[in-house]
Amino acid sequence: MTLHAFSDAEQAAVYRAIFERRDMRHFSGGSVPDEQLQRLLQAAHLAPSVGLMQPWRFIRVRSQPLRQRLHDAVEQERMATAKALDEREDEFMKLKVQGILQAAEVLVVAMTPGREQHIFGRRTLPEMDLASAACAIQNMWLAARAEGLGLGWVSMFCPEALARLMHMPEGSQPIAILCLGPVDAFYDQPMLQAEKWASRAALADMVFEDFWGQASGA
Amino acid sequence: MTLHAFSDAEQAAVYRAIFERRDMRHFSGGSVPDEQLQRLLQAAHLAPSVGLMQPWRFIRVRSQPLRQRLHDAVEQERMATAKALDEREDEFMKLKVQGILQAAEVLVVAMTPGREQHIFGRRTLPEMDLASAACAIQNMWLAARAEGLGLGWVSMFCPEALARLMHMPEGSQPIAILCLGPVDAFYDQPMLQAEKWASRAALADMVFEDFWGQASGA
Repeated sequence: MTLHAFSDAEQAAVYRAIFERRDMRHFSGGSVPDEQLQRLLQAAHLAPSVGLMQPWRFIRVRSQPLRQRLHDAVEQERMATAKALDEREDEFMKLKVQGILQAAEVLVVAMTPGREQHIFGRRTLPEMDLASAACAIQNMWLAARAEGLGLGWVSMFCPEALARLMHMPEGSQPIAILCLGPVDAFYDQPMLQAEKWASRAALADMVFEDFWGQASGA
Repeated sequence: MTLHAFSDAEQAAVYRAIFERRDMRHFSGGSVPDEQLQRLLQAAHLAPSVGLMQPWRFIRVRSQPLRQRLHDAVEQERMATAKALDEREDEFMKLKVQGILQAAEVLVVAMTPGREQHIFGRRTLPEMDLASAACAIQNMWLAARAEGLGLGWVSMFCPEALARLMHMPEGSQPIAILCLGPVDAFYDQPMLQAEKWASRAALADMVFEDFWGQASGA
């Protein structure tokens, strides 16, 4: 066993969270106790960030009218996406893409203004702030799965419109509407695979050796 | 206990991985067995992706001369970053930013060409492909921590130069040089905090309610 490795049971639990985490769009209402939500937010906040810039901010949506407006904003973008998808429009329209009205909690994740002052690790790749915020959401996703809660990341919205709805300052940027809460069941495979929208690629096709396109023995 | 929740011990293991994961730059050489590397890549590949597009590709660097060239490319960008940081240049130059020559394994993570055809969840937010790839890296990071291996995400490079080094096709984009392998010790706090480059913000300052800037009770 490698030095610093977790016990076999602990390793299995981490892999279980990774295997069983799903992007959920079906929720069963209920509620998330404050201390549980706090743990999940803390898990997100413990994510790595480029130059330790911690670009993420979380807006918990308590107002029911505001939640309804978020739902409507996503519906509007869903229609626009359907049109843009052209020959897959009908197929797309059958898919459930969000559970904003059913989820126990809705959170908007946004990046803070003033990010341009952070150059560490971002001089040539300014988008690393988004990568950091995505790691935070992934942390929350896995912690939520372990706690038995579903989470779905909705990115189907007009960012400018959402920023206005949330009274966000110039320079900030919304990146996610998270639906969080109890679910009747976790999908046993990604919902988009079950619905035959797309399917998981073979890992071997994702891995190269030394140069792009060169098959790996690993 | 919530329906679908992992056992307390399993939940604790998931949170332990989240708490103890570090962005590592100090490695102790050694090696990563092929089957272990395969598990970590599988963990990455099980990440969520917008529209199930799976934009990530992993290039395992086996060639020593290629690894040296990656190291040199990062060194070059380190100098450019130092100059751009102006009054923090000296402080920055004391920081270790990568462990490319010491890590057991080096992987380049890149996004595949042809991503523009994926519109699902990306019509207004095309950068969601990067968010998905970051979730994949976070999965690998947590799995590696559980297995006792350190991982560091280096984003200090010129993406065009790195793409050339790795023979990447037009339209692909490198987003990370990952250093992976055994470490003597995991940092007990983020290295950039220990070195007083930056410090963790309080979670309460990261969370709002309903509108940006409105304090949350959660």
